[in-house]
Amino acid sequence: MVKAQYIGGFRLEKYIIGVDLGGTKITTAISDLDGQILSKTTIATLSSEGEKKVVERIIETIESVLKESKISKDKVLTIGVGSPGIINPKEGKIMMAANLPFEDYCLVEPIKAYFNIPCYLENDANAAALGEFTFGTGRGKKNFIYVTVSTGVGGAAIIDGKLYHGNTSNAFEVGHMILDPRSEIKCNCGLYGDVEALCSGTAIAKRAANAVKQGKETLLSDVLDISTKDVHEAYLKKDAVAIEILHEAFDYMGIAVANLITIFDPEMVVIGGGVSSVGSLFFDRVKASAKKSCLDFIFDPVEIMPSSLGQETGVFGALAIAKSSIIE
Amino acid sequence: MVKAQYIGGFRLEKYIIGVDLGGTKITTAISDLDGQILSKTTIATLSSEGEKKVVERIIETIESVLKESKISKDKVLTIGVGSPGIINPKEGKIMMAANLPFEDYCLVEPIKAYFNIPCYLENDANAAALGEFTFGTGRGKKNFIYVTVSTGVGGAAIIDGKLYHGNTSNAFEVGHMILDPRSEIKCNCGLYGDVEALCSGTAIAKRAANAVKQGKETLLSDVLDISTKDVHEAYLKKDAVAIEILHEAFDYMGIAVANLITIFDPEMVVIGGGVSSVGSLFFDRVKASAKKSCLDFIFDPVEIMPSSLGQETGVFGALAIAKSSIIE
Repeated sequence: MVKAQYIGGFRLEKYIIGVDLGGTKITTAISDLDGQILSKTTIATLSSEGEKKVVERIIETIESVLKESKISKDKVLTIGVGSPGIINPKEGKIMMAANLPFEDYCLVEPIKAYFNIPCYLENDANAAALGEFTFGTGRGKKNFIYVTVSTGVGGAAIIDGKLYHGNTSNAFEVGHMILDPRSEIKCNCGLYGDVEALCSGTAIAKRAANAVKQGKETLLSDVLDISTKDVHEAYLKKDAVAIEILHEAFDYMGIAVANLITIFDPEMVVIGGGVSSVGSLFFDRVKASAKKSCLDFIFDPVEIMPSSLGQETGVFGALAIAKSSIIE
Repeated sequence: MVKAQYIGGFRLEKYIIGVDLGGTKITTAISDLDGQILSKTTIATLSSEGEKKVVERIIETIESVLKESKISKDKVLTIGVGSPGIINPKEGKIMMAANLPFEDYCLVEPIKAYFNIPCYLENDANAAALGEFTFGTGRGKKNFIYVTVSTGVGGAAIIDGKLYHGNTSNAFEVGHMILDPRSEIKCNCGLYGDVEALCSGTAIAKRAANAVKQGKETLLSDVLDISTKDVHEAYLKKDAVAIEILHEAFDYMGIAVANLITIFDPEMVVIGGGVSSVGSLFFDRVKASAKKSCLDFIFDPVEIMPSSLGQETGVFGALAIAKSSIIE
């Protein structure tokens, strides 16, 4: 934790830096404490070049936003990094990440050492939740849940105004809650019928490919390598197969949301990620299904909202990590 | 909150009182802050006599334990009350409770007024969780989940050492999480395939009665008004129907436990309640099913333990409510 008031004797200009580390690109921004971005840059991660090179590229992006914003580094209080994979936030380590060259690697150390600025690391879903809580739709909510429905399904809970990590920092693996114990659909993780197997972009695309394979009559038959976007487009053209697939995935997602509400009794559920970005098609269906799967007195007070940060979720999440480490 | 250190200038004898209010009986105890009970009494609730009479009977039990323990009431820091039903703990109100004569009723007021001692109210499942956390198996655990499997299924979560209430004080309605969306078994609450519909004592007894009705060959055919205990007895005699019913209920319970672990990443899950009191028959099956429904790296660090308070859960829960309101 960094105590803002000890940085200087009189009113300070204070800034934070956020690094959204992804398997394909790194986006880094510098902002004030209100999340007003002064400079932002994106470069390729080039994971295949190994951990040392990727760290150098992260440092490069930080230098770039400092230079471009003309802010001297002694005015930067903290650096936050959001990363996919299994993260140990206490030690600032990436334990394992599918598309990154890090394994049991302390990422915050070289960044801290290079800039002499405290650096904090969180899992990208936690970062996104913090981003919505700090700068987005969930601002000011005390008990708030964030779910991202994209290639996979992830999320995080803000409890009493703080990110909930759990005992081993693996809390809120919402994608791997069992949703349908009778389902024969297997998740990449090995479980059957979990949220990710039934509601993710991967699940939707797989189901569409299977329908085509089974010879079902659908516009998707003409599509090579079907994506969620293709299924959505076919849906808008009233393709029966696409409608069935999306309705089923969204109905399942509604049950998952209902269960989270039943357990957490939150003020708000914010849903982000590519699959949810189709808007009311997604939200109307998810809300209707969630209401049916939840007791009224628990469900009715809860707001279910789309993410307000959209494409910027990653970088605002990283900035929020930085901000959350400051005691003001 | 009561500040212990302000009660007197030198070392004090300090006591707490806990009232376990139930639909059929009231059990009240006085203990020291370590939960050493000095006196305990149980009387019938006599709900049908109305709210005023029940409050009088609660007061009577408190006077009785004070008298019997010979502790003067100025040495009692707080009184905790655990009650079934929908509770507003902030206002000390019972909003609604199936087997009690209270509706939107502030229960703490008359008790506080009569004894001039602060009084706090919690839902009985929350009280039980606090009891396990303060005096039982979960002692000292920071993130800990309590589930009770009895006539219904309830529970509570202790997060960062504090009872988690949620936004509207209705968090952790674990009995009403949807467990099997394809199930045609309806819960009393109206939902289909929720935890209570599939795992509770009521569910087990209902399923047994149905099996008998369907003419299945079972020892339970001879039993009038089948209870969970009867099903358990038939199970021990290797009755195939009883085995199938219990295995299914416990397997479902394992999935519910797995989902809670996946979401909370707790240090420990403590399970209490009558259905779980059959011991290893319950725990072995629930653990095996939970392990199959959870990612290893999340499941393996979690301890799943039986309640250590057993029949005394209610009264220790009430004492824990009292204790949790004291800042030491």
